[in-house]
Amino acid sequence: MRELRQITVVGMGLLGTSISLTVSRLSGGLKATGYSHRASTRQKARKLSVADEIFDNICESVSEADLVILATPVRTFESIFQKIAGSLKDGCIVTDVGSTKVLPHRWAEKHLGKNVFYVGSHPIAGSEKRGLEFARDDLFVGSLCILTRKKGTNEKAFSTVRRFWKKLGCSVSMMSPAMHDRIFSRVSHLPHIAAAALLNASDTKELKYCGKGFIDTSRVASGPPNIWTDIFISNADNSAQAIDKMVNELLKLKRAIKANNQAQIERLLKKARQRRKELINYKIKSRELLE
Amino acid sequence: MRELRQITVVGMGLLGTSISLTVSRLSGGLKATGYSHRASTRQKARKLSVADEIFDNICESVSEADLVILATPVRTFESIFQKIAGSLKDGCIVTDVGSTKVLPHRWAEKHLGKNVFYVGSHPIAGSEKRGLEFARDDLFVGSLCILTRKKGTNEKAFSTVRRFWKKLGCSVSMMSPAMHDRIFSRVSHLPHIAAAALLNASDTKELKYCGKGFIDTSRVASGPPNIWTDIFISNADNSAQAIDKMVNELLKLKRAIKANNQAQIERLLKKARQRRKELINYKIKSRELLE
Repeated sequence: MRELRQITVVGMGLLGTSISLTVSRLSGGLKATGYSHRASTRQKARKLSVADEIFDNICESVSEADLVILATPVRTFESIFQKIAGSLKDGCIVTDVGSTKVLPHRWAEKHLGKNVFYVGSHPIAGSEKRGLEFARDDLFVGSLCILTRKKGTNEKAFSTVRRFWKKLGCSVSMMSPAMHDRIFSRVSHLPHIAAAALLNASDTKELKYCGKGFIDTSRVASGPPNIWTDIFISNADNSAQAIDKMVNELLKLKRAIKANNQAQIERLLKKARQRRKELINYKIKSRELLE
Repeated sequence: MRELRQITVVGMGLLGTSISLTVSRLSGGLKATGYSHRASTRQKARKLSVADEIFDNICESVSEADLVILATPVRTFESIFQKIAGSLKDGCIVTDVGSTKVLPHRWAEKHLGKNVFYVGSHPIAGSEKRGLEFARDDLFVGSLCILTRKKGTNEKAFSTVRRFWKKLGCSVSMMSPAMHDRIFSRVSHLPHIAAAALLNASDTKELKYCGKGFIDTSRVASGPPNIWTDIFISNADNSAQAIDKMVNELLKLKRAIKANNQAQIERLLKKARQRRKELINYKIKSRELLE
């Protein structure tokens, strides 16, 4: 990554700080700087030395950057693009770690200058834990990172971003923002929606009788509500369609149960079990899961 | 448990065999015998010495028993009651480990003689793994066991069954079969149905992009399809109602997402998160989960 001399992370939460920590660990002359809009976070970041420099001003923070990485909620991207557009160097690359990709691409096209290159990134890493304190310099090791590009995406900028994530330890996949948002509404947003619906469908007083099944099925509902609201809102149509698909499958099972149709229930459960088996085998083969 | 001299477990799967193993470990003069309708299972059971005696004939197996425990699928209970009714001693207690309780009570009333006492049991223990090979003599330690009783339930028999499960390491709760089936359709059946629906709503090719959230949310769908079909069928009305509640919650979230109603999405997610927090705190306090 000789083409990069300075990166700036905007947003020093779990993901943003894990990026700066990983870059610091790898060293190699790449300067890692950061910005947070919260004074208390900046103070913590300086105290814990999670980056080479922490800026108080967002425009100053990006003015010398070769790569700017937005690690704030997706809903903030448009105003951040507007704010920083005038301060970016010619040739600067902008990316992000947002969980949806159609809107960030649209906002980048609208607000970033033509000598600034945007590439979308979505590292599939994280934790239920939030904040700088939980950041780790190996968070991305072994993770998948999806990069998104459109027809107009700059080839060289794309390659640079890809090399950057690989350096951090990710394996990298590439797809269009539209495809990304469709797929992730089903494999990522839907489990969160299902977990929340499962809990909200339960009676608090009855929950004490639940076993490990309920506890695992509902785990992701412990994630931060504001972040997930942001994700659903920024991928609303796909999220709504994913919910419809799930409702459809639930009603299929319900009809089979009401009709006492044992063969059909068993067929649906077998199909689900087989899919999960294939999934687990794939994740073991790709070393995302241990055997 | 001086009142018990011999128990007979009908069905030598994971749960049944774990009962005989635990009784053997506790010793105290209580004889643990078993029956399986499969010759290969009986052979394995004898080879592994999982009980004091394994019978080839179900009627012989129960004829000297003070406590008979059905550990076969719920759908088999009615015919087993019919088969063994004539062979049970006066004063014999019959229970089971089935996941639904209304039908077992009904069938017991219909088929067991008036000098035989039925009590329903549902130990909340188990594993995705099946079969005698995975049985453990500590499977019930720290587990909850729900006992069910109706107006006509014999007081002494109920106390004996309660002491039995406590001896095995369970903490015991009591409720009516109707209440049991209503509660467990929501806290146990529904997560399984949701996990299956989530998988069936996904595209196999897309699943490779999923993260740990999807993997946890779908875990219970790896359970045995025939056992779960049996459970849903034997608690059909409650299962259907539980599905309706979940569908209702999913559609609430969908409407909020379509309407771009951020406050409502966040409210629903916060409610779910708060419920899970209370649940986890309860499970830690009751020592079902470690801190």
